[in-house]
Amino acid sequence: MIICGVDPGLTRCGIGFIEAGASHRLSFIHVDLVRSSPHDPQDARLLAIFNGLSRQLDTYLPDVVSIERVFAQENRNTVLGTAQAAGLAMVAAAQRGIPVALHTPTEAKLAVTGNGKANKAQVQTMVAKILSLNALPSPPDAADSLALAICHALRPEGAIQGGEREEHLTQAQKQWADAARKAQSSRVHRDM
Amino acid sequence: MIICGVDPGLTRCGIGFIEAGASHRLSFIHVDLVRSSPHDPQDARLLAIFNGLSRQLDTYLPDVVSIERVFAQENRNTVLGTAQAAGLAMVAAAQRGIPVALHTPTEAKLAVTGNGKANKAQVQTMVAKILSLNALPSPPDAADSLALAICHALRPEGAIQGGEREEHLTQAQKQWADAARKAQSSRVHRDM
Repeated sequence: MIICGVDPGLTRCGIGFIEAGASHRLSFIHVDLVRSSPHDPQDARLLAIFNGLSRQLDTYLPDVVSIERVFAQENRNTVLGTAQAAGLAMVAAAQRGIPVALHTPTEAKLAVTGNGKANKAQVQTMVAKILSLNALPSPPDAADSLALAICHALRPEGAIQGGEREEHLTQAQKQWADAARKAQSSRVHRDM
Repeated sequence: MIICGVDPGLTRCGIGFIEAGASHRLSFIHVDLVRSSPHDPQDARLLAIFNGLSRQLDTYLPDVVSIERVFAQENRNTVLGTAQAAGLAMVAAAQRGIPVALHTPTEAKLAVTGNGKANKAQVQTMVAKILSLNALPSPPDAADSLALAICHALRPEGAIQGGEREEHLTQAQKQWADAARKAQSSRVHRDM
């Protein structure tokens, strides 16, 4: 199963692909950044992101696309552009009949490091470790897209469900599964 | 010249078309709402909006698309969905090589009523008057999309530029032109 992760952004949109095999064996396929120039008009930038993501999906043909869930509470200047890039990733997937999953940054960090507040360097290091890379993912800021793909591969409601396979998980993965289960049982519906 | 106005929304996205002729003569072509069901997953909803807007553009072939500018400051629950719908309208236009203009709700209200804080009913009434409609635009909540199209037709940097044609403007249009000029000279760059 090929899983695509998308770390949405209007200037730099991370997109990564991994293969999820038997017994949670995850291997690296590809990672890239789709870019647009801040000097271009908004419509040209969004079209560049949309075309770039579409091309990547057509090249690597994922079975599912795991996209970072964007929250309005994040009061950054860039939140609208980020939400728009996430929306374009959803449309590009939906046009191809590819299922979409949304995961929060906390879920992704927990999945790869066991710590929902891990920093960039920790995420990069653990992504490289999980995918048996010889070096950190390059470009480094594309590691988050791979983390989102890994997060989806290891999500409790899929791979870990039933419990009988949890013995294969690393300590960090078990911690994440526990945290995700707790989060799920107390989750408030915060739809976009 | 055919102008398309888009009032972005994820549940109800207004889209209207007007023809701008000589001497600011504006006539009505079509208005509609593109909808998506709140019960559908986010990706299906965005695809429905994108396909609906694309079909309308292919039917009425506008020369320009005037879209409401969305601000992050609006701390509504729906702001991300609104921004995503606006982004999809921009991509649908850009795919067809149609220029995009962004106008604020205040600019649109000023353009049609002379009052940047006009209520829905005032906007609907004035839209009907400017476009010589026998009744209020239907559906009523699609009037804002026509207001955005009218706003673009009457914008100072186009039709009104040079001043020599300002004699053709109504009192409300002159007021708006003044206000828009003032706003433009003091405008802070608030990019999305």
